[in-house]
Amino acid sequence: MEASELCHTSLRSLATLIQRQEVSPVEATQVVVDRVEKFDVQLNSYITLLGDQAMAQARAAEQEILDGHYRGPLHGIPIAVKDLFYTKGIRTTAGSKILSDFLPAYNATVITRLRDAGAILVGKLNMHEFARGATNASSLVGACNNPWDTLRIPGGSSGGAAAALAAGLCYGALGSDTGGSIRIPAALCGIVGLKPTYGRVSRHGVFPLSWSLDHVGPMTRTVTDAALMLQAIAGHDRQDPTTRTAVVPDYTAALTGDIEGARLGIPQEFYFEHLDAEIGDSVRAAIQTLERAGAHVEEVSLPFSKYAAAAGRIISLTESAEIHEKFLQTRFADYSPDVRAGFVAGQLILGKHYMKAQRVRSLMRQEMAAALKRVDALVTPTVPIPAPRLGQTTVNIGQESVDIMSTLSRLTRPANLTGFPAISVPCGFTQGGLPIGLQLIGRPFAEATILQLAYAYEQETTWHQRQPMF
Amino acid sequence: MEASELCHTSLRSLATLIQRQEVSPVEATQVVVDRVEKFDVQLNSYITLLGDQAMAQARAAEQEILDGHYRGPLHGIPIAVKDLFYTKGIRTTAGSKILSDFLPAYNATVITRLRDAGAILVGKLNMHEFARGATNASSLVGACNNPWDTLRIPGGSSGGAAAALAAGLCYGALGSDTGGSIRIPAALCGIVGLKPTYGRVSRHGVFPLSWSLDHVGPMTRTVTDAALMLQAIAGHDRQDPTTRTAVVPDYTAALTGDIEGARLGIPQEFYFEHLDAEIGDSVRAAIQTLERAGAHVEEVSLPFSKYAAAAGRIISLTESAEIHEKFLQTRFADYSPDVRAGFVAGQLILGKHYMKAQRVRSLMRQEMAAALKRVDALVTPTVPIPAPRLGQTTVNIGQESVDIMSTLSRLTRPANLTGFPAISVPCGFTQGGLPIGLQLIGRPFAEATILQLAYAYEQETTWHQRQPMF
Repeated sequence: MEASELCHTSLRSLATLIQRQEVSPVEATQVVVDRVEKFDVQLNSYITLLGDQAMAQARAAEQEILDGHYRGPLHGIPIAVKDLFYTKGIRTTAGSKILSDFLPAYNATVITRLRDAGAILVGKLNMHEFARGATNASSLVGACNNPWDTLRIPGGSSGGAAAALAAGLCYGALGSDTGGSIRIPAALCGIVGLKPTYGRVSRHGVFPLSWSLDHVGPMTRTVTDAALMLQAIAGHDRQDPTTRTAVVPDYTAALTGDIEGARLGIPQEFYFEHLDAEIGDSVRAAIQTLERAGAHVEEVSLPFSKYAAAAGRIISLTESAEIHEKFLQTRFADYSPDVRAGFVAGQLILGKHYMKAQRVRSLMRQEMAAALKRVDALVTPTVPIPAPRLGQTTVNIGQESVDIMSTLSRLTRPANLTGFPAISVPCGFTQGGLPIGLQLIGRPFAEATILQLAYAYEQETTWHQRQPMF
Repeated sequence: MEASELCHTSLRSLATLIQRQEVSPVEATQVVVDRVEKFDVQLNSYITLLGDQAMAQARAAEQEILDGHYRGPLHGIPIAVKDLFYTKGIRTTAGSKILSDFLPAYNATVITRLRDAGAILVGKLNMHEFARGATNASSLVGACNNPWDTLRIPGGSSGGAAAALAAGLCYGALGSDTGGSIRIPAALCGIVGLKPTYGRVSRHGVFPLSWSLDHVGPMTRTVTDAALMLQAIAGHDRQDPTTRTAVVPDYTAALTGDIEGARLGIPQEFYFEHLDAEIGDSVRAAIQTLERAGAHVEEVSLPFSKYAAAAGRIISLTESAEIHEKFLQTRFADYSPDVRAGFVAGQLILGKHYMKAQRVRSLMRQEMAAALKRVDALVTPTVPIPAPRLGQTTVNIGQESVDIMSTLSRLTRPANLTGFPAISVPCGFTQGGLPIGLQLIGRPFAEATILQLAYAYEQETTWHQRQPMF
């Protein structure tokens, strides 16, 4: 297989090739390292490329497999992670100048789990400074570009991960999602992004933005790949007291393609308002595709969703205040002004407002739980607009000019506040060739259900097979 | 039985007399109403005396019992409640000028439950304005006095309840406890006060001070009476989503007097520091009494308890901010200045500090749960000092001058933050004749255990038999 073909194959396909010893982990890793060196100048998706270390890991994996010790579908697979996952002795910047020389003393639990599953860590990916949702993925290494149009943003804050996956610069990635930071770049770059249930995946050793909203999850090119990555990282971790002991099911077993009789809820408020017309059309077409595949569609009511932006911002900024209190005193000038403004605001939010936001959050949780008693999943667009241009701050939706930064996270924030699992899966392209994402939101700990639905949809379509030319 | 004797009998004893039809509810209620009219001038323990309504209820109870419909041990018993429990059509002031003409449209759930059990509501009891812990029980009707020395405070904020019980002006009462407001006046007035587990007793229709710290519980003259009152009010309430569905056990069945082999934890930090010498002596003697009754005593470590004052105050004031935001705008002048100062401060507390306080609270909860894995209950003094004089703001403990207001709640606050059940039971008197309280803190929903221990202690002593002369 040619390198240009191999690099775009799915994690699942590469795993089969590696297991059959038709491709070696060394070959696969070399392809990725070479491509990052050659093409990432245009994308800036990597902050740190771990060429030599990755090759050493790949040779060890190769030897293990040759020795008959095949560990499973992640063995020998080149992956990369957002640069806020602690990697022992490897610089972990969180996209910031402030942590530009931070060398963690230990690995994040999810890093350990991926390494134990045999994955090869190729590098650390670009992200918004401290994962704060500024419009551009501004980090200490500069903005990351969208491989579908390098003058456009990949979305954030896990933009490097989405860009790298779309461009064939890794086979799987880990992102984090506080207001949509996995799903937004997944939608804008045409890949799959899964935010699991709060408590499903450990956050030990993940630089925090907001402890009650932060989620860790996989970003991949296909739904099957997301299931494989989640399988490796999910489950209780004694070092993260917020993780739950609920049994981790077999996620790939759920991917049957059969969704006959599945019940889908279409929110009658909020989620289909203020949408770019092409996105609305694509999502409605996707719903029809799901119906043809056997799903039943009904309307559900989620009127509290409209408070997600205000509540999410108050909670996120308040929770970040403690984390950044010291750096604001000692490293004030080393923040980007727009990111710093948020953390300074967080210092000043009143307790009574934080409390009110938490109460609204309880109502949102009750409302979403009630809707998901009637249906198996909610179906919505992931992002109301396609990828904006770098530096652009407003965009027109119909006659209306809207702020891009708040628009990008408008439809993803509710699932952070409720903690319910949500996946974004490619569901089309604009006439200008920009990807569109479909969001499925499920019941707590029912990741298997939304993976199953997303997989069935993916089987009916070819969007995930397109590759950007850049 | 003489009225002067009948008024001081226990709820349990009166219940037996009523059941045997040796005393009628009408007679018992008339005794209470007469005594309140005659003696409460000195105590000011009632805000509202419901003479006619109570007598009507008593006559109805009498008739039911004569008709053979005896409802159980609260049937026909004259009780009174702190004036923050909503009583339908009956003025409910929360001790404030602001609510001086507030007529609730419904009864608090606990009022309904007591009435359903057949109790007679004789009146609404004096309390600190809005249950805020100012030194004196300053309310719209003025301060309440301690029946053991009417120049001294009864403690608060449920001071009226404790004073009325000690003076024989009711047989049982309901209080509320946000930082010790049931247990502090119980200790200072020589009665029993039980703060149940958070979630055990409904707070629907109880004017709130701080939703995550407020607890409702019984105040009585004996431990058995507390068990009987708790039995009537405990359990899930659909109108209070914070109540739990855990089964309500038979609390009086636990009162065997046998505590052979019970394990008691004595905190090695905080709880026995800065104590009035006579209180320390009485509590240590009480521990020896419990040991003689068969309990094993060991030291436990609770170093986080020292943060209870700061965390409790931040959480309480922040949570009260929303409740009082509007009144501060519209009725500013109708607050007492010291109470208002707290609510104004609550408006200004930062979200990051509220959050930090909640995190300290989690650590306190973990620490207390760990200690209570090793032992069945913690034993401590309830209040570090005996009842101070009205208007007094500081007191000497040894060579040290301490602030009375913060000292009074120092040892009770931890159980509000953790939500664990705690009871205060009389354990002696100072040489000056002021009551001393022993606090027992138990595991969540293990009210039966601390009632059992308190009962066994009470059986070994005669403190609860003393009556104040006033």
